[in-house]
Amino acid sequence: MYSGGYMGKILRIDLSNQSAKEEVVSEELARNYLGGVGFAIKYLYDELRPGISALDKDNKLIFAVGPLTATGVSCTSRMAVASKSPLTNAMGAAFAGGYFPAEMKRAGYDMIIIEGKAEKPTYVAIKEGDVRFRSAEKLKGMITTDTQLFIKEELKDHNYRVACIGPAGEGLVPIACIINERRAAGRKGLGAVMGSKNLKAIAVRGVKKPAIADAAKFKEARQAMNWAMKESDVLYPKFSKAGTPMVVDKTSEMGIYSIKNWSATGEIDLVKEHGLDAQDAMIINKAYCADCPVGCSQVKLVNEGPFAGFLSEGPEFETTYSLGSAVGVTYLPAIIAGDRICDEYGIDTMSAGVTIGFAMELYERGILTKQDTDGLELKFGNYEAMIEMLRRIAYKEGFGAILCQGTKKAAEIIGKGSEKYAMHIKGLELPAYDVRGAKAHGLNYATAYTGADHNRGYAFQEIFGISIPEEVDRFAIKGKGKLTKWNQDVRCVVCDCSPICAFLLDMGLPEPFCQCAADLVAGATGMSLTEGEVQQIGERINNVARLFNGREGFTRKDDTFPERLMTEPIKAGASAGQLISQADLDEMLDEYYAARGWDKDGNPTPAKLKELGLAMHNRR
Amino acid sequence: MYSGGYMGKILRIDLSNQSAKEEVVSEELARNYLGGVGFAIKYLYDELRPGISALDKDNKLIFAVGPLTATGVSCTSRMAVASKSPLTNAMGAAFAGGYFPAEMKRAGYDMIIIEGKAEKPTYVAIKEGDVRFRSAEKLKGMITTDTQLFIKEELKDHNYRVACIGPAGEGLVPIACIINERRAAGRKGLGAVMGSKNLKAIAVRGVKKPAIADAAKFKEARQAMNWAMKESDVLYPKFSKAGTPMVVDKTSEMGIYSIKNWSATGEIDLVKEHGLDAQDAMIINKAYCADCPVGCSQVKLVNEGPFAGFLSEGPEFETTYSLGSAVGVTYLPAIIAGDRICDEYGIDTMSAGVTIGFAMELYERGILTKQDTDGLELKFGNYEAMIEMLRRIAYKEGFGAILCQGTKKAAEIIGKGSEKYAMHIKGLELPAYDVRGAKAHGLNYATAYTGADHNRGYAFQEIFGISIPEEVDRFAIKGKGKLTKWNQDVRCVVCDCSPICAFLLDMGLPEPFCQCAADLVAGATGMSLTEGEVQQIGERINNVARLFNGREGFTRKDDTFPERLMTEPIKAGASAGQLISQADLDEMLDEYYAARGWDKDGNPTPAKLKELGLAMHNRR
Repeated sequence: MYSGGYMGKILRIDLSNQSAKEEVVSEELARNYLGGVGFAIKYLYDELRPGISALDKDNKLIFAVGPLTATGVSCTSRMAVASKSPLTNAMGAAFAGGYFPAEMKRAGYDMIIIEGKAEKPTYVAIKEGDVRFRSAEKLKGMITTDTQLFIKEELKDHNYRVACIGPAGEGLVPIACIINERRAAGRKGLGAVMGSKNLKAIAVRGVKKPAIADAAKFKEARQAMNWAMKESDVLYPKFSKAGTPMVVDKTSEMGIYSIKNWSATGEIDLVKEHGLDAQDAMIINKAYCADCPVGCSQVKLVNEGPFAGFLSEGPEFETTYSLGSAVGVTYLPAIIAGDRICDEYGIDTMSAGVTIGFAMELYERGILTKQDTDGLELKFGNYEAMIEMLRRIAYKEGFGAILCQGTKKAAEIIGKGSEKYAMHIKGLELPAYDVRGAKAHGLNYATAYTGADHNRGYAFQEIFGISIPEEVDRFAIKGKGKLTKWNQDVRCVVCDCSPICAFLLDMGLPEPFCQCAADLVAGATGMSLTEGEVQQIGERINNVARLFNGREGFTRKDDTFPERLMTEPIKAGASAGQLISQADLDEMLDEYYAARGWDKDGNPTPAKLKELGLAMHNRR
Repeated sequence: MYSGGYMGKILRIDLSNQSAKEEVVSEELARNYLGGVGFAIKYLYDELRPGISALDKDNKLIFAVGPLTATGVSCTSRMAVASKSPLTNAMGAAFAGGYFPAEMKRAGYDMIIIEGKAEKPTYVAIKEGDVRFRSAEKLKGMITTDTQLFIKEELKDHNYRVACIGPAGEGLVPIACIINERRAAGRKGLGAVMGSKNLKAIAVRGVKKPAIADAAKFKEARQAMNWAMKESDVLYPKFSKAGTPMVVDKTSEMGIYSIKNWSATGEIDLVKEHGLDAQDAMIINKAYCADCPVGCSQVKLVNEGPFAGFLSEGPEFETTYSLGSAVGVTYLPAIIAGDRICDEYGIDTMSAGVTIGFAMELYERGILTKQDTDGLELKFGNYEAMIEMLRRIAYKEGFGAILCQGTKKAAEIIGKGSEKYAMHIKGLELPAYDVRGAKAHGLNYATAYTGADHNRGYAFQEIFGISIPEEVDRFAIKGKGKLTKWNQDVRCVVCDCSPICAFLLDMGLPEPFCQCAADLVAGATGMSLTEGEVQQIGERINNVARLFNGREGFTRKDDTFPERLMTEPIKAGASAGQLISQADLDEMLDEYYAARGWDKDGNPTPAKLKELGLAMHNRR
């Protein structure tokens, strides 16, 4: 039972009149949505006007951490940032680690809801419950590292942690992100929402540790988790040393590392150029999030050549794809530089890279000419052009003003059949995994509430051969509906709500996921939940997100793939011949909807809503 | 009398065996050398082996602040960094403000002496007297902003202040500098000395305020200074708003703003391109040093074009010259970007720019070809080439490996009569003031113990028409010897020892300089000195520095100018027709040596040394 040990508070900030008020986290909210993205989605669904423009002042931007954040549980300094997305017009949720999330919790808050729009550029400084609105007039146009430094200096305490936007967010670029330290709440254009509110940054400082409800139970649960982590033969021995770039080699081997805007998967072996060994040579340090003993982020530095001096906490696997394989760039220093440049301007590396890759394919096919690109030779592999294009995207300069809108809208503007090469789902650019050779990954891309988002229901079973909850064949269609529901629900509650870092889950940790989360949450907050109740929270949130998207006009027809994936098989490599036909997709969707208790059109049934206690929520 | 209120301590760090010990500041040392550069020069003279290579492990690198630092007196967070210079082989002293100096004092030290050489890349963390040696292996090659951030993160307290080198210092580039925050101890290549010791950074943290010996006297002296500052019609009304770029307009008007490697002074009016109004439009913020109410540093940010996103705390006047007029570049965004790039790589903007300007003149004269420059079109005004050359200098790439050595050595390597265009004195590149039209400036360039260094005896009388100690005619030769001695001694003790920011002195504040310093020091430390004794400390230090340089082989023949200044008059503008002939120089030197009590060869006489209590110091 909920014991009242739960210490969370909600801070509601209205930028229009520079006011802030605190609200309590009710037991009902905590039991039904746990925290993190659960809280955020519930509030956005309840409070946003259907059909609202994402850049309308009445859209809301929510930062939310979870009940485990800052309690000392490993790998819990994670936050959800959520809003209606200006890139997809669907539910936009992006996630980031770093130090900001733990500091936000210590400053006193589980959730910060940003409403309204400041008259002038503003930043908000929060210290132990004290909220100040400060002018950001002098921070206009600043890149993100400088922004963080200047705010810390102005607040006379460099131990503040700052989440901010760069010039791209200020300029309402639809692929703008939010940066804290060198972590990005990268996708879905939430930086533009922040920019539309004239909010340059949020700075948080706190030293309070959340109270622990049941110290003995909490200690036991923590120790169990830490032991499981220590016993993993992947986590410390491999992942801690190599981080996500591990997956470059893995996916290349599997023939599902997408290359050149998905036109050449399997045809080129990129492992030598920017796989693990190549990246290893450039690692100079590890970077950790708060309360993380793993430190998966491998800091890389370029020591010579045109990009000497560029350092990035990465590039992570997905950036190695988007600024590397997707654009045919194998020169690792350019990928590192591009990664840092995106962070500094505040644009999403994934959407930016994939959109440039899209333009490169159009250029090579003659659909775009040098005149269209303002003189840039946008050929695959031209890393100078890629780097220059990143700047033009961030500043909406020339052709950059088209590409900055992402592949979907860019294709609409360019026309001439370019839609065929626009690699997105629901307006969100595709991640690296070529799902023609990993079908559960595919179904998740098609159905995730944020668009083509590998992280909302990552099918680690297909990539790492982990048999949780069961063994899977990555090429098979059958069974993927049920699996995807499981992946999405478990991941949602464990990683995006509690929150335990998703990278642990990918390695099967801590298993059984929902029971471990239940034990930790019970110890920390005194709120007792069964394993099944925990999993159901994930299901509930996915349903609310589905209702939100349905209200915005999304239907079964949006749960789909770019044409290429359904008509062109992978040409070479270990997944040669694979595709996901329309029939395959339909079969998977039918199974998925059935597993979810949704109707054939993908709408939650009244029975399912009732089961989840959601009947009254569907206000459409 | 010295009351014992003086709280200073010296920290002596031996990197070779990773040991540190504390020494007290004796009354004798304080009375004779006050602090700051006085301490540093005295110790270097006493402890360095004559003729030592600047990059030998037995060279020493000293950081020194003064008795007023961190006491709360305005504008005293200044430090001297001193060593034998690898660029000039003379006494190398460079100065920086920011927050590091005040923090170093609060951490407990007036002076940190770095000896020996660490076996592996190391940084030193000092917190309240606790000294730790930490591996900097993972910081190798990092630019300076990233270095500072990573150290703060690693030490788990972002309120540390860090002085560090960039890739250039690590690579022993002779024009490498030392950066704290965005402040540079810029000149004389001291970053290379730090690099030669395998010392990537020093981090300091302290909260102790120095004890004040006589609170009433101290308060009175501080208030007098603050009143004088408030009453100035320049300091707050103008300088606080515009900072040093004020002088772009001023010197242009006077026809002494050097242009295109000193080949075109007066011929071009640069005020429109990068004068005050142009710079004003790009100011987004002010930056302050600790304990400074003025904030002269105008933060500028590029908002569009190829350098969008670049921000610098500057460019200061001298950088506007070195990366602007000296290289014929009028595009302000390129100057801002160049300024930041130099800070990040850790190279001196002044030496770098002037050396590139030198190479540009050679290129335009056909002495250098595109083959020599590895394909770079090194023409005046080509800012892309300038920016690229900065990188090649920092990384010693191709032709950059020659230019990184500064004009003097580059000219020796290039030969072909290039020496004629090498604008340096004693190996240090000339500052912006075209001294043909400001003769006391010229004499100071020729005689300053660090080489062509405007800041060691800045003739503010010639620039701002201030009649302290007397009215001067900037074109006149007569009287400049006496004036230069006065300027050098007063500036040395007041600005470089006590230390009060030199920019105040330039505006006649706080006057009478030595009496004000005496009052402040008496209040803070209890050490009573007369105005004359204070001024004599400045004289003493200049004499010790002269002895040091004499011991290294410098003689009267080194107190000279590049040939151009003595043979080519300024061609146009308000100083047209002016030059400093050999006869002019000789007349000024004779007067200067006489005023100093030095013989005709510029050596301190035994009588002068005795008067200054230095007889035993001349160990030659």
